[in-house]
Formats: sequence, C-alpha cells, structure tokens
Amino acid sequence: MRRLINDPYEIVEEMLDGYCRAFGDHVKLLEHDGRVVVSKNAPKKDKVGVIVGGGSGHEPLFLGYVGEGFADAAVIGNINTSPSPEPCYNSVKAVDAGKGCIYLYGNYAGDVMNFDIGAEMAAEEGIRVETVLITDDVISSKNVADRRGIAGDFFVFKAAAAKAEEGSDLDGVVAAAKKANENCATMGVALGAAEHPTTGSEMFEMESGDMEIGMGIHGEPGVRRGKTEPADAVVTEIMDVLVPELKLAKGDEVCVLVNSLGATPMMDLFVAFRKVSMILEEKGVTVHKTFIGTYASTMNMPGTSVTLLKVDDELKKLIDYPTNAPYFIQK
Amino acid sequence: MRRLINDPYEIVEEMLDGYCRAFGDHVKLLEHDGRVVVSKNAPKKDKVGVIVGGGSGHEPLFLGYVGEGFADAAVIGNINTSPSPEPCYNSVKAVDAGKGCIYLYGNYAGDVMNFDIGAEMAAEEGIRVETVLITDDVISSKNVADRRGIAGDFFVFKAAAAKAEEGSDLDGVVAAAKKANENCATMGVALGAAEHPTTGSEMFEMESGDMEIGMGIHGEPGVRRGKTEPADAVVTEIMDVLVPELKLAKGDEVCVLVNSLGATPMMDLFVAFRKVSMILEEKGVTVHKTFIGTYASTMNMPGTSVTLLKVDDELKKLIDYPTNAPYFIQK
Repeated sequence: MRRLINDPYEIVEEMLDGYCRAFGDHVKLLEHDGRVVVSKNAPKKDKVGVIVGGGSGHEPLFLGYVGEGFADAAVIGNINTSPSPEPCYNSVKAVDAGKGCIYLYGNYAGDVMNFDIGAEMAAEEGIRVETVLITDDVISSKNVADRRGIAGDFFVFKAAAAKAEEGSDLDGVVAAAKKANENCATMGVALGAAEHPTTGSEMFEMESGDMEIGMGIHGEPGVRRGKTEPADAVVTEIMDVLVPELKLAKGDEVCVLVNSLGATPMMDLFVAFRKVSMILEEKGVTVHKTFIGTYASTMNMPGTSVTLLKVDDELKKLIDYPTNAPYFIQK
Repeated sequence: MRRLINDPYEIVEEMLDGYCRAFGDHVKLLEHDGRVVVSKNAPKKDKVGVIVGGGSGHEPLFLGYVGEGFADAAVIGNINTSPSPEPCYNSVKAVDAGKGCIYLYGNYAGDVMNFDIGAEMAAEEGIRVETVLITDDVISSKNVADRRGIAGDFFVFKAAAAKAEEGSDLDGVVAAAKKANENCATMGVALGAAEHPTTGSEMFEMESGDMEIGMGIHGEPGVRRGKTEPADAVVTEIMDVLVPELKLAKGDEVCVLVNSLGATPMMDLFVAFRKVSMILEEKGVTVHKTFIGTYASTMNMPGTSVTLLKVDDELKKLIDYPTNAPYFIQK
C-alpha cells in the first residue's frame, strides 16, 4: 500500500483531530460526539441548519464544506460507511436555531436509513428536519430517484447553504437544494481503485492501462471497461451523456466541476477541462464558474469526474454567495 | 499508466489552454509566447514584477499562483524541464512596470541557466531583474546555497508577491523573498513514483509498501529507503530535522504546509498534520496558518511533504496579504 497512516482503525478519529487542529478557527468537533464537525458559529440565529454527511474517504467532502456561509455541520461515518443515527441526531441538536434543519447527502441506502432515524429522533423533540437526497450520478440508474450522489454534492450543498444564509425558511432551502440537484449531473471515469487502509489492498481490481467509464466512487459498476482511450474521446463520451441529461441548449449557462477522484495529476484535470470547455463552446453553452481540483475523492483512486450544474440567475447567485469554509475555493 | 491524457507531446500546451480557459478572468497566455502565463492586470502600475516558473508537472505550482496579489507571471517548461530563455525574457517584457522584476524559482541547474539568460537579455534593454533561488529542500545538500527548492516555493512566492503589492522597490522585494527562503524548510517522504506521460511508465522504481524519506520531487535520492513506517514515526523523523534547521524554540510561530505530492489521500494529509501539530504544541511553537492539500506536486506521485515557515510580524503580514490567484487557498 502506498499510504502513510497509523492504526487503520483509528484513521477517522486521527483525521478529524488533524482537521480540527488545522481549521480550529472555523470548525470544532462536538464535545459529546466525536463524529460531528460543526461550524464555530453554529447555531446561527434565525438560520436553517444545513447538515451534510456520509462515509469517510471522500475528503474534502464532507468536513471541508463546513464553515461560515456553507454547511453548519458534517456527520462523519467510517470509511465508505454511513454515520450512525446518533451523530445524525446530535448534529441537529447542535445546529438547530429554531428554524429547522436540512439533511443533504448522496443517495446511499445506509445513509438514508441512519439519517432518517436521526430525523425521527429530532422530530420527537419537535425539531423539523427535511432531507434532500443528491442523485447526480447519471449512470447509477435510469430512474432519477434511484441514482446515487457523487461530486454534485458540492453544488447542491452550496446552493442550499447559501439559501439558508440568505435567511430563507426551511421550505425555501429544500426547494433550492432540489432545484440544484435537478439541474446537476455527474459522470466519471475510473482508472483504478483506492487502497483501503484496513485491508491494505485495492478496493477492486483493475489493470493499469484500463479504464471504466461511469464507475461509482466506491467502485460501483459503470458503463463499460476497456483500454484507456485519449482524454478527449473519454470527455466527449461523458459530455454526450451529460449535455442531453440536462437538456443543454444554445444560450444556457453552467457551472463546471472537473474533479480528481484522488490520485489524478492536476495537469490531467486541466487537459480534461479543455475538452469540456471546447464542447460547451461548440454548443453555445457558456460557463459561469469553473472548479478544478479534488472536491469529492475516494482516497487515492485514480480517475476524474465531470459535473455540470445548469444555472439560472438564482442558482448563480447561490453558487457565488461568499463562504469561508476551509475547502471551498471560489475564484 | 493510470492517466487520462491525449498526445503526451502536446500535454503542456493542452494543460495551459485548459487552465486559461478555466481561469480566463485571472490569467492569459502571452499572445506571442504560449509558455508564459500572465496575470490579467499585469503590468501593474508602480509595482515590481514578480515572475515564477520552472518545469511542468508540479501543478498547481507555478501557474496556479499567478493572479491579483500573487505572481504577475509564470514561465512554463516541459515536464521536469526548465523553460527556455526566450519565455523567461518575454515574461519580463510583459510584466515590467518600470520598477524591475524578480525571478523566483527552485534552485535547479537548468532553471538557473535559462532564467539567467533571460535576465541578461532584459538587462540589455535596461530592465533590472534580480533572482532569488529557493532552497528549502533541507535534505538536498548540507550547504544551504546548493539546496533545491520544493514546496517552500509557495511561501517564498507569497511573501515576495505581497511585498511587491505593498509598493516596495525591487531591493525590498528581494529582501522579503530572501527572508522567507531563509526561514523556510521542507522535507518529504515518497511512497512511489509519478507516471511520466511520454514514457508511459513510472519515473523510478519503488516497491509498493516502501518509502524513501527526504526524496526530492523528481526522485532525487533522500536519506534512506525502507518499509513504510507509521505516519507518526515518519512525521517525527521529518520534524526532528525541520525544527533544529529553523532553530525553533518556545514562543516561536510558524506557518505549516502539509503537501500532497499528487496521489496522497487527503485524509492521510490530515493524519500527518495532526502529528505536526502535536510536536509543535509540545515544543511551545504556535501555528499562525495551516495549508493542507496539493500545492506542489509531481503529477501522480504518492507521498507527502512538510514545510515550516518561521514567521515574524512582517512575514505573517505578507503571508496573510489578500490574493485572488486561482490556487491560493487561504482560510
């Protein structure tokens, strides 16, 4: 394994300790629950609480998006594992300011089960918690509601958090999250697997030189596997799915996220974005904002995903809303 | 190879095209020299021109640090190869505003030769160009002046650029760069090699599960190679070199950069920072600012480096000086 770690069974606790030591001006761990990262200024008066979360190993998702102007809390599970119901509930207690809370996370069965229990526990205390499941992974199902959430989490979190910051009530925040999710589509390509710290080996087998288009971030099956093709051909194949999915037409605007799954050279991301940009240009679609880097990873998985968010004036305003969360980079 | 590229001989041009498409509000390529990335607002009136550069493959170094409040230009070479003299010279012509320019780059023979020719060409036209070589790689030589520059580039660029933004003359900018360089030390650990796009294979051989402490970012020999040890032990070994190198004592302040060489899971960086933080705490050294992520990479090389910058009030002010360069993340 090519990773520098200590005891693999302590890796999540050590990561959280390191993270909060680094960004202690922005976040802290809940005193009574070491799996909830909360913004230093939560609960914020008269603001809907925005709670994100899921399994570890996808950093900077989820903890990197907690902070002023972004999420109020992230609930952290073990690697590729949903958080337990208790921290889901504790996060609500920590950030609710009387206007209720929203749970935002990728649509995975374990997360749905445990966050739902957290919401029920909160409801028993009279705190309203709504959930918007993120379903941007276009390849994961033909049925949109069954799709998983991947890098598009980033855009949906951002839109909902900004809406909450603007002072919207919970229904308004839910509507903003749904709108972002409906206008967001992601497709990626895996060139290999991440190394799992506990087993010390790769999470699945893939020959060096092969690729799997449309593979999920935990290695869920994609569209097809074969020899790695030129970047431009792969990006074209991805865009041929994303563009019709979002019904993009001349005059539309998008935000673009070209994301490293963890072990992708940054130069390759710029090469991929070049083709994304050329294809959009050709179709008369303009780019409002570009994000290129590691936003939703799977530890050291080699591969890249492309996310498009179709934006109108409202979504543009929400994406552009200022935030100081440690891993939000906005230029 | 686990990389998504097109023609390897076009990779630098495609990267630059993609980068400038993404961040065209901040930077552009010089019209007559496709290897010079310049800030949109360069030349800036009454400001010393700050020029950085070196070989490609270390992104976001160097191009990511061009923009408002940071470098005015980056001169881009082929992968692991110095830029030619011509773009070094062209960058001066593009950004000089009458107060002269400073070249800042890591101390590698090829870069020194070609940037020096660029400076001579500029001198013939009456433009003064000074150079500060960055030498933060503590393992690369016992003699400080012979050391190479690695991730510490980031801090030295930042300090010098902020000094220039403040309106300092060239001597003042040179002094700030030297001061940052003298107070900066980096040491890393490699867990494997990057894959070179042209050869399609790894740049050197290292068994999975091995590590080499102190290895340079192009695979230059380090202190020792052996089985990968626990993160805390490796970080301790690194800190045992960096702390005496900077003569850190109780009451001192530092900025910390925990850098991925390209294929390191972000969770492992937080685990490494945890130990850095614990060691500094034990020694009574406080952390002014923390940077954790990919700041100076070698494509998809697995490994991590730790950089410490000992700061006084002046250096703190320079590091904190606002900038909007696309890959400067300051929280």
